[in-house]
Amino acid sequence: MLPVKIAGLGACLPQRIVTSAELEHTLDIPSGWIEQVTGVRERRYVTHETALSMGAAAAARALDDAGLRPADLDAIIGASSAPHQTIPCTAALLQRELGAPDGASACFDVNATCLSFLFALHTAAQFIHAGVYRRVLIVSSETAQHSRNPRERESAVLFGDAAAAAVITRAEPGEPSALWGARFATYSSGADLARLPGGGSLHHPNDPATTREQNMFHMDGPAIFKKATRLIAPFLDEFFTQVGWQRSATDVVIPHQASRHGVEQLTRRLGFAPEQVFSNLAVRGNCIAASIPLALAEAVAAGRVERGQRVALIGTGAGLTLGAAALVF
Amino acid sequence: MLPVKIAGLGACLPQRIVTSAELEHTLDIPSGWIEQVTGVRERRYVTHETALSMGAAAAARALDDAGLRPADLDAIIGASSAPHQTIPCTAALLQRELGAPDGASACFDVNATCLSFLFALHTAAQFIHAGVYRRVLIVSSETAQHSRNPRERESAVLFGDAAAAAVITRAEPGEPSALWGARFATYSSGADLARLPGGGSLHHPNDPATTREQNMFHMDGPAIFKKATRLIAPFLDEFFTQVGWQRSATDVVIPHQASRHGVEQLTRRLGFAPEQVFSNLAVRGNCIAASIPLALAEAVAAGRVERGQRVALIGTGAGLTLGAAALVF
Repeated sequence: MLPVKIAGLGACLPQRIVTSAELEHTLDIPSGWIEQVTGVRERRYVTHETALSMGAAAAARALDDAGLRPADLDAIIGASSAPHQTIPCTAALLQRELGAPDGASACFDVNATCLSFLFALHTAAQFIHAGVYRRVLIVSSETAQHSRNPRERESAVLFGDAAAAAVITRAEPGEPSALWGARFATYSSGADLARLPGGGSLHHPNDPATTREQNMFHMDGPAIFKKATRLIAPFLDEFFTQVGWQRSATDVVIPHQASRHGVEQLTRRLGFAPEQVFSNLAVRGNCIAASIPLALAEAVAAGRVERGQRVALIGTGAGLTLGAAALVF
Repeated sequence: MLPVKIAGLGACLPQRIVTSAELEHTLDIPSGWIEQVTGVRERRYVTHETALSMGAAAAARALDDAGLRPADLDAIIGASSAPHQTIPCTAALLQRELGAPDGASACFDVNATCLSFLFALHTAAQFIHAGVYRRVLIVSSETAQHSRNPRERESAVLFGDAAAAAVITRAEPGEPSALWGARFATYSSGADLARLPGGGSLHHPNDPATTREQNMFHMDGPAIFKKATRLIAPFLDEFFTQVGWQRSATDVVIPHQASRHGVEQLTRRLGFAPEQVFSNLAVRGNCIAASIPLALAEAVAAGRVERGQRVALIGTGAGLTLGAAALVF
């Protein structure tokens, strides 16, 4: 149990709203199919916004929410599925964009696709508990539409663009906030089930052999769902045993907003009541690494999560990796 | 002071050796210029090897060196300047490539360009000290030649391809090994001095506006050297004060093999004797994130670093970030 807290949260959504009806029209999909299959009614797409501009805006709001200034940060962690540029890391660009002073913070990125924020939260908590850093900013910002594959109907309509940020600090004596524990496990037999082969060194953008297709996201949704369904029950059993929580004593479950099936899986099969589970999937889509912190920020803003409540953040991501974190907000 | 140790080290070099004479011929550079200016006599370039295949080979050797098997790992950290694929993270692909069992390890990547290994080492040490993980594999693997910019003579000839890996475990009672401390600071006023704008969301590979030039590395070597020179003296003063070491009591300094100037800077200006500083720059070039762990692995293999000795790992990276770690090997 680490006495750390999420001192502030912030989000940034691109202005443009794209309805499922609009996508059904442009992608020649039967009317009503998208919401019925994926659970997404509308999502946002960037126009002039970038992953960096949205990330910085979300970060500024998270700092405001925490009552801190950029100069108060001693570490900045970029936690998205893809960087803004390959070099330097996105966290360094965020330092500059926020006007955080030169030399006052250590900047690095953490990447585990959809679970990047959870890994970064777990990492930040260790550093804060050890006294290495006192105030850590985590920023997840995604512009998934650039990698959309119009030929893969389900994934093409599932994703939305968004950014979310959190400021992590030590919990002061008397404050209930804490990270009770986190657990992650990667099952790489499923490494090909969600993949974006391009953008890295395997299919370098300048390699004439690299295809447009390789720079798009590919997902076998049913296979991921099947594999995750088999794995997540024992994974969560061990997780709740490890942190010593009862599922019923969890105030709010914030799942990664993977898909309708992915979110419903948690309630139907895994022992939570529907009213325990928060979802913004219908209006945000799957925002990859930004999904969990965005849902948390919106749950807090809506009064669904209050200080002192028990929150479980649970998700699956490419890898295939399962992750969960238990915190008292 | 964290009682953790580098239990095993491994490296993998591509087969093809590229001499500076060969590059001078192909890039129309005066004979002798490359070694004189950059200090690099030869470097390796991948042909059939990939970042993943080299990373897995280095990891297998690091596991052997530690007397461990892939199944013993409970976390794998990819720590390179660019991923193998954008999705999933390289660590998940390494789990599969190594034959490490499904579900037994948590996989994520850490990115801070040339300092990725140092950030990952600091992160792994926190997790091991906290008892979250017991045996963490860190893998840095770089295939820089894909992003070489033939129009930037100095950077085009500077980089080499290589992989290196380390297995981090708890130090047993009675063992001298420890991470005494680490320090990082990012100065993002220098964020544009070393950059690779493409490969991420800002200039997506499929965006028709993305140019070949944007997918290449750009570096203002003299400006980086000037800025780093100004910053590193006070940075290292604070670092050595923080860890409580005298420079003269440091057995071996392993600098990031940035360039001849970068390596010489440490001795000439910063208070180390030439015999304290290990360099493989002449035969490896700058291997980005793999530079520091590769130099450490080669220093250990050459008998230059022995168990119980004090080692300082020091580097600069894109960001601009300075980093240093003090460990008893």
